[in-house]
Amino acid sequence: MADLTPELREFLDSNCVGVLATGAEDGRPRQSLVYYARDGDVLLISTLAQRAKAKDVRRSEWASLCVMGHEPPYPSAVFSGPADILTKDIGRPTALVMQRIAGLPEPPEPQTDEALAEAGRVVLRIAVESVTAVNYLPAHESV
Amino acid sequence: MADLTPELREFLDSNCVGVLATGAEDGRPRQSLVYYARDGDVLLISTLAQRAKAKDVRRSEWASLCVMGHEPPYPSAVFSGPADILTKDIGRPTALVMQRIAGLPEPPEPQTDEALAEAGRVVLRIAVESVTAVNYLPAHESV
Repeated sequence: MADLTPELREFLDSNCVGVLATGAEDGRPRQSLVYYARDGDVLLISTLAQRAKAKDVRRSEWASLCVMGHEPPYPSAVFSGPADILTKDIGRPTALVMQRIAGLPEPPEPQTDEALAEAGRVVLRIAVESVTAVNYLPAHESV
Repeated sequence: MADLTPELREFLDSNCVGVLATGAEDGRPRQSLVYYARDGDVLLISTLAQRAKAKDVRRSEWASLCVMGHEPPYPSAVFSGPADILTKDIGRPTALVMQRIAGLPEPPEPQTDEALAEAGRVVLRIAVESVTAVNYLPAHESV
């Protein structure tokens, strides 16, 4: 797993949405905009078990997330690595993502796995293994 | 090819960067942030012939671009379809992209194909065939 630099951690923490890419069944990339949270060098996304992105990850065990700043020159980086779908002990990771969606100072009270299963919620986890296509970020100016 | 709605055309024209996804040789999606221009229902990206994204498109003849607004709730849509790499008559499409990169009111004077070839520049063209993962855009609120 990659050791994210302090600059990349700060970049991930100061933004809250990214474009997720997973491999669809037909071999083509599938993209969608998602909120994410960072926990160490792991990226967490809350989604629904039946969503195509969750099925892609179960099948391919890999995902990437392109995160960008929202003003010119649009700093950006792509974080990719092994990915899996979690259904156990997902109260805290789900709360970390919900905190970012709602813009709360603290994560909300974690829900139980049972309540989240009832709502169809799972966590898509990416263990960042590589960081590519880095542009306009400190120490990565010309990558 | 998809007929883009006026709302989707307006969305594409009012933004200028998106996340491109192509299929890498290992079967995984490859992402990067790019500037784009719209010409009818075609999306144009200026890149270098030797870039991985250009090689991916030559091999897979397909690409997708996720475009997003830059403020909450972050409206977004993914535009995908057959893609190819152009090297002839690319003066005008390249100028359309350069206009957006530089934020100019009009496209700059087109360069010749010879000058662009010298600089290694090609145009990656996506003929939008489908629009997916549409969120927070008019008439697509709950897709």
